[in-house]
Formats: sequence, C-alpha cells, structure tokens
Amino acid sequence: MSPSTPAYDQLASTFRRLHHLQHLQSIAYWDQAANMPAHGSEARGAALAEMAALMHRMRTDPRLSDDLKRAEQEPLTDLQRANLREMRRDWLRSNALPESLVQRSQLATSRCEHAWRTQRPANDWKGFLENFREVLATAREEAALLSAQSGSSRYDAMMDRFEPGMTCAELDRIFGEVRQWLPGMIQRVVERQSHEPVIAAVGPFAVDAQRALCEKAMRLLGFDFDGGRLDVSTHPFCGGVPEDVRLTTRFRENEFLVSLLGTIHETGHGRYEQNRPRELLAQPVSQARSMAIHESQSLSFEMQLGSHPGFAGLLAPLVREAFGDQPAFAPDNLHRLMTRVKPGHIRVDADEVTYPAHIILRYEIERPLIEGDIEPEDVPALWDAKMQELLGIDTRGNHKDGPMQDVHWPEALFGYFPCYSLGAMYAAQWFAAMRRQMPDLDERITRGELGAVFDWLKANIWEAGSRFTTDELVRRASGEPLNPAHFKAHLERRYLA
Amino acid sequence: MSPSTPAYDQLASTFRRLHHLQHLQSIAYWDQAANMPAHGSEARGAALAEMAALMHRMRTDPRLSDDLKRAEQEPLTDLQRANLREMRRDWLRSNALPESLVQRSQLATSRCEHAWRTQRPANDWKGFLENFREVLATAREEAALLSAQSGSSRYDAMMDRFEPGMTCAELDRIFGEVRQWLPGMIQRVVERQSHEPVIAAVGPFAVDAQRALCEKAMRLLGFDFDGGRLDVSTHPFCGGVPEDVRLTTRFRENEFLVSLLGTIHETGHGRYEQNRPRELLAQPVSQARSMAIHESQSLSFEMQLGSHPGFAGLLAPLVREAFGDQPAFAPDNLHRLMTRVKPGHIRVDADEVTYPAHIILRYEIERPLIEGDIEPEDVPALWDAKMQELLGIDTRGNHKDGPMQDVHWPEALFGYFPCYSLGAMYAAQWFAAMRRQMPDLDERITRGELGAVFDWLKANIWEAGSRFTTDELVRRASGEPLNPAHFKAHLERRYLA
Repeated sequence: MSPSTPAYDQLASTFRRLHHLQHLQSIAYWDQAANMPAHGSEARGAALAEMAALMHRMRTDPRLSDDLKRAEQEPLTDLQRANLREMRRDWLRSNALPESLVQRSQLATSRCEHAWRTQRPANDWKGFLENFREVLATAREEAALLSAQSGSSRYDAMMDRFEPGMTCAELDRIFGEVRQWLPGMIQRVVERQSHEPVIAAVGPFAVDAQRALCEKAMRLLGFDFDGGRLDVSTHPFCGGVPEDVRLTTRFRENEFLVSLLGTIHETGHGRYEQNRPRELLAQPVSQARSMAIHESQSLSFEMQLGSHPGFAGLLAPLVREAFGDQPAFAPDNLHRLMTRVKPGHIRVDADEVTYPAHIILRYEIERPLIEGDIEPEDVPALWDAKMQELLGIDTRGNHKDGPMQDVHWPEALFGYFPCYSLGAMYAAQWFAAMRRQMPDLDERITRGELGAVFDWLKANIWEAGSRFTTDELVRRASGEPLNPAHFKAHLERRYLA
Repeated sequence: MSPSTPAYDQLASTFRRLHHLQHLQSIAYWDQAANMPAHGSEARGAALAEMAALMHRMRTDPRLSDDLKRAEQEPLTDLQRANLREMRRDWLRSNALPESLVQRSQLATSRCEHAWRTQRPANDWKGFLENFREVLATAREEAALLSAQSGSSRYDAMMDRFEPGMTCAELDRIFGEVRQWLPGMIQRVVERQSHEPVIAAVGPFAVDAQRALCEKAMRLLGFDFDGGRLDVSTHPFCGGVPEDVRLTTRFRENEFLVSLLGTIHETGHGRYEQNRPRELLAQPVSQARSMAIHESQSLSFEMQLGSHPGFAGLLAPLVREAFGDQPAFAPDNLHRLMTRVKPGHIRVDADEVTYPAHIILRYEIERPLIEGDIEPEDVPALWDAKMQELLGIDTRGNHKDGPMQDVHWPEALFGYFPCYSLGAMYAAQWFAAMRRQMPDLDERITRGELGAVFDWLKANIWEAGSRFTTDELVRRASGEPLNPAHFKAHLERRYLA
C-alpha cells in the first residue's frame, strides 16, 4: 500500500490480514478439540505458537501507532469511526504489556493449568497453591500496568479485557442487590419444587439419536448448517469462524438433557457469530460486543427460549422421535426436568437460579485477590463462608469442588466470571423488551413462531457487532441501561408464579 | 537471530518457521476436504491465499539467497549439506518465476478447473479448450523459464517439480520398453481371467461396517492412530502433517473393495509421512524424496502387499467380520476380485496391469504439448489413436472419459503423470530387493508377519527422507538403479504364472 493511502485504509488492510490468519488459527483450535489425536499435540502447539508470535508482531508493528493517530484526523463515517475505536482497543490490548511479562504469564498459567489437571482430582490445594501464587503475581503485575494505562482500578482494568466499560462500582451495585434476594428465592424455589411430581427419563439414550436430536433443535433455532457444523469435544464450545461456525457438544448414554441444553446454549453463540455484519467481517467493528453480550445470546437461547414452557412443547415431539415415547417426555414433565433447581458445589452444573451465587462468590474473592487485599491462602475459608451464606453448602476441605473447580484461575482469566451473570441479566432484559413490543411473545413461542425472537436479536444485537459501546447497545435495544430487575422478574415468573 | 549466527542456522530457523505455518495450512486443507460446509469456502480461500502470500514472502526474502551462498562455505555435516541442497531446491522453486506469471497461472488454472467441473460431465471439449489454451500458454512460459534456469529441456524442467532428477531420456527408454510388451500382456491376462470363475460379493455394505473394516486394515498395516485419523472426503487423499496424518476415503453402499484398497493405498502414503526422520521434521531434508517415491509407498501397500494372495487371506476374516460370511469372501475368490484386469477409459479406475497404458498415453501427449510440438486441438485424435494402440478402446467423441477425465491438465500439473507408473516400478523393485534378502517373504506375508516389510521400507525409504538423491536412494535400497524389469516380472508372476 502506498504511503499516500489514508491511514484508515492501511489499518483496515492490516486488520483484514489478521482476520485471514485468525481464520486458520480458529480452525486449528477447533480441530485440536474435536479431532486431533493424542500425539499431534506438540506439533500443533508449536504451529499455533508460531502463528501467535507472527500475529503479535503484526499487532505491535510501530507503524500502527502512527496510523491510528493519523486516522483520527481523517474524514470518516460513523461506522469507520466506530471501527477505529475498536482498532485502538485491539492495539492497546496488544501493546499494553511488555513481551517479557506476556511470556512469564504464559509460562506461569501453562504450568499451573497443566498441573491443575491432576491436582484437582487429587484435591491437592497445597500443590496447586505453589503454581497459583506465580499466576497471581504476574496477573497483579499485568493489572497494575493496565490500570496505570487506563486510569481505572486494577480489577476494572482486568475485567475490561472481556467486558469493556463494566466497573466494580456497577457490579457492586448489581451483585449487592442480587445478594439480598437470591438466598431467600433459592429456598422458596427448592421448597416449592419439592412438592412437584417429576418423572425421570429412562435411558440409555443412544448417541446417534442424541446427535440427531441436537441437530434438529439447532435447525429449529435457525442455525445455518451451510455455514457451520456440530461435532464432539470434551469441553463444549462455539468455535470456528463467522462464515463457518463450529459448535461442539459431548454425549453420555445415561443422560440427554445436559447435551441438548448445552447444544442449545452454543447455538445462541453460534447464531450471533453467523449474523455478525457480513460486509465488515474482517474489521474489529464486526466483532461480538463483549463476553457478557455473547453470553446473553447463549442464555437467550438456553434459558429464555430453550427452557421456556412453550419451547418444551416444541422439543417434546423431537425427543420422542429420538428415543421413543416415555411418560417423562410429556411437555410439562420435560419442562420440569429442564428447570430443576438444586444448590450444589459445581458452577457448570448449576441451574439458572443458583448460578449467580457461584458468580458473586468468585467476584468477591478474585477482586480482592487482584487488588492485593487477600492472598491465595485466604481463599478456602472465604469460599466456604460464602458458600454457606449464599447456598447453605459446607465445602470445608473439599478444594476440588471448591476453589479448584474452574480452569479460569489457573489460566489467569480474572475478571471473566461476572460476564456469565451479566449475560443472564441482559438475556432477561432482551426478552422483557421483546414482550413490551410483542405482548403475545409467549404464545408465539408456544406456537413455534420463533422468527420474532430471532428477528429481534438479529436487528438489535447480532447485526450491531461492536458498532456501539455496550451501554449504547443495551439502551438502543431495550430502552434502558442494564437493569437486573428483569432477571429477578424472570426467575419469579418461571419458578414462583 | 544475531548477524553473527552461522548462515546455515539462520536458514534452518526460517525453514522451521515455514514448517509451523505449513502445519496450519495442511490442517485447513484437510478440513476443507473433510468437514467444511458449503458456505465456508470463500473465507477459507481468502485465508489460505493470505497464508500462501505470507509464506511466499518468506521464501523470496532476498536475505535467503545470501544465506544460501554463505552456508555453502560453512563447515557442515553430510546431513546438513543434504539439507542445504534441499533448501536450495525449495528456494529455486520459489524464486524461479516472476510474481506476475505465478498470478496469471493461478488465475488461468483456477478458471479452467472451475469450468471443467461442469464442462466434463457435459462433454464440452470446445468450451474446455478456450480455458485450457490459456493454462497451456502460461505453463509453456513457466517451462521456458525453468528450462533456462536449469539448462534441462522444458518437460524435464516441469517434471523436476515433482520428480527431481527424472528426464525424458530415461522415461523414453523405460516407457518405450513397456510399450513393447504391455499390450500383448494385457491381452493374455484378460484371456486367461475370462476362464477363471469369480463370485461377486453381494451388497449392500453398511458404511459403518466399511469404516470399521478400513480401520482394521490400517491397524494391520501399522498405521499409528495416535498420530493420525481416517475420515471421508469426495476425493481420497493423504493430508495433515507427519505428526498427525489425515487419511480420507469415501464409501458407497453397493461396493466395498474400492474403498478398502483405496484406504490401503493411502495408508502407504501415511506410514511414509508418519516415519519421516523425526528430529528433522521441520527441515527440507526430512521431506519425502519425490512424488514417485511417495507413490512407490502407496503402491507397495496397495499392490505389492495389499493385493498379495497371502494378504487376501489376512483380509478375508476381517471382511467376514464386517459383512457376514459369503462365498465371495473365501480368500482365493477375494484375491480374484481384487486383481480383475479390464481395459477401460478411466485411469483412476484402472487395475495395475492396464494402468501404465494410461500413463504412457498422457506422457506422450503432454510432453509435446509443453515442448510446443502439438496444440490442444490435436489432443483428441492423438488420444484416440493411442487408446486404440495400447488398450484397444475407441474413445472418439467421448471427451469426458478421454482427455477431460483428469484434473491434472486443468491444474497445469504437467510432468506429474509419470510419477504414478514410476511409483509402481519402484514398488516392484523394493519387493524384489526384499525377496533377495528374505527368500521366505511370501510365506511371511501369508502368515501375517508383515513387520519384515515395514522394517525394510522404514530403514530404506521412510527414514531417509530427502537425505539422498532419488537415484542414490534407489541404489542404496535395492542395489541397482531404477529397473522396470521388476515391474514386468511382478505382473507376470501375479497374472500369468
């Protein structure tokens, strides 16, 4: 590109190149999880490391800083200006940390995560601590640097990597309020459900039939199989590229709902990716807005829509087609099976009512960890106290189902957890907004007229990409800023009405 | 790397980076053939083009030329010197052609190949000619440049891309001789087989059972499933990377032998890749020696070993396990089914006896095409005359099963065809050498003691990589240069003894 090319165009060209390389990276990651045989691991790791280094060099090319400054002065459309803002965000993230810190952090997390895989089943908290201290030390360095750069608090700066614009001040307000009503609500729901008869489904559930059922549910939910696939991996995820979305799930013969609801969850992520603004796919402005907004799509699909009593009525015939008829597959009973509430140790197994308790607990621990107000040694006691408070569960000595259960801390993903519950709140807010515009929304869902839901999400969320800040996006979509009252109202209506 | 680093080490480091990037490229190619949904195509193409451009820039970096010269002066081991020779080969290939010619050639082949997909079924020779003339024109330009660079003839220079060291002079000698005895042999074999009773296998053959059978055959042949997989694609191939070899096949319910023998063929390619020298995988010297040597491995597996009467006895119980018992699955009858000889129009469907006729015909047409001695308009008449001469088949007017049947010409792969028959000859030569060392080889194969075969191939071919020139490799392995008499003797023993 000639030096007289506008700086904006030069930047756009660089990001297009990055987009193409990222395509190969994403397919290789998906392949690693879905296909790769055991002995392919080392070569794949080396190939991906080479690619990461190459892309890092492109992102830290000194010319970019200059182009970003010059582009600010160029006449740009609103959309280009939004793209420039997101380019700057990408640039800041890539250039904020010295190479040596990035390397030390990668070493520490990779060592900790690797050891954690065996330490967790062995309940070896002491062993875990040795590596985790190093992970936390580099994370604190990172937080200090990011905080100095942005002027926000250390935890805010860490959270900004996943949820730009979200702050502890807002989280304290939101989670503080949830903390007030959640434990009482859980008790009432559990008490109420204890009087409801529910019939268990009788297995085994053949894997081929489960796969066919999941694919039918994905079609029902509008997933485009000409631009994506469903495969199997140990940890389900939504990967691939927007033009070719690769969802994964896993199957167990003695159970089918976990896989089905998991697939519905990933389908929400998948449709967001499949519907990002097409003409801008190579540019940062087309990216999904944030982790919480992404999660608001998977939870719109899994919880708002997929666990809707009307949707259970749509699923029931598909379930019977897959496994034959059973009393458990009557729509009402299927819905009860899909909405059981039970306080438990494990976040990823939690229902939508108890889930926020797991998140609040983690937020209240990882924030002071990052801020330096507590040390890793303090975690188990805090964990236990909070589990008692929020869920009435005793976790003493059970580290493997306590602070060692998630991969997030070994991987230094501090600031990520809040996105899960923010996503649940946004999802409730989207459906509240839809109901204001379409008072018959629930009847439509029951009748299988799901187009109204997809059209709303497409117009308000998917096609916006990162054009607006999260707060702007939320206000434009729902007419108000994030309002957790909708989440509470959703739980009350579904579980206590 | 500091400027004082020896040039050889700098080169090795560059080729290591290329090796890592090629890994991602290979996995993306495999995924494209085995998994990618229809609408993923455009984005994948753009991503692969970006990567190809990036790797081309690395390969044409002006510093390399200097490093190659300096490295010649450095004290190197024999192995390093062989690696340097292969680096130079890679460099020459990447730097021989001007960028503009490469681009014009890519455009012409991609247009021709794309149109060919519909022109071939429509038997549209005239439409094909329009694009093919352009393909040939750029190929002739390429041949002229490569010939000027190497000092060899134009066709030799084109063939050198696939089969370094092979010349028209040698091919004329080899194919000229085969031409003498092949038509007569085909007649005798067909006459003889017409008196042999053979029982057809009765389908359908369930795809799951076929897949399981193919995987069992691969295990029998020593394929390492911890470092590879078998999947399905329209055109079977051996892809992936040496640490993670991805074979593909395709299944039809009414037939199982094509898929089984095709899988055995790809397994030969796969084991070569899986056993290239491990400590040097990132370096050019570890590459498979040539296309003919690669084909000599797939044909060692498919023809020498896989179609051996003793191997049919090993396959028979696996076939019965897959599909139940049938009279057709008796070892003798199975072997007859696997070795039917019948002159036909289509190269890829040809048996090992008639196959060389298809190759000689193509060589005798594409060589004068490249040398400028004939024009595309002349091809159908020549094709027909040679099919009559070699196989006694009338192809007049049938372009789709004549000169339009292969993808090679639309893709400008001039010089590739001879490798197939050279591979068959090398394979016969390997087994002749093995029989000299192990007079009981056939009994061993019949008893299922296949280790002797694998050990020989590993020590003599696989682990050599590109350490020796092809001629050196052949002499070291078999004690003589390429000697097509072994191929003739193999056919006589199997089909006329």
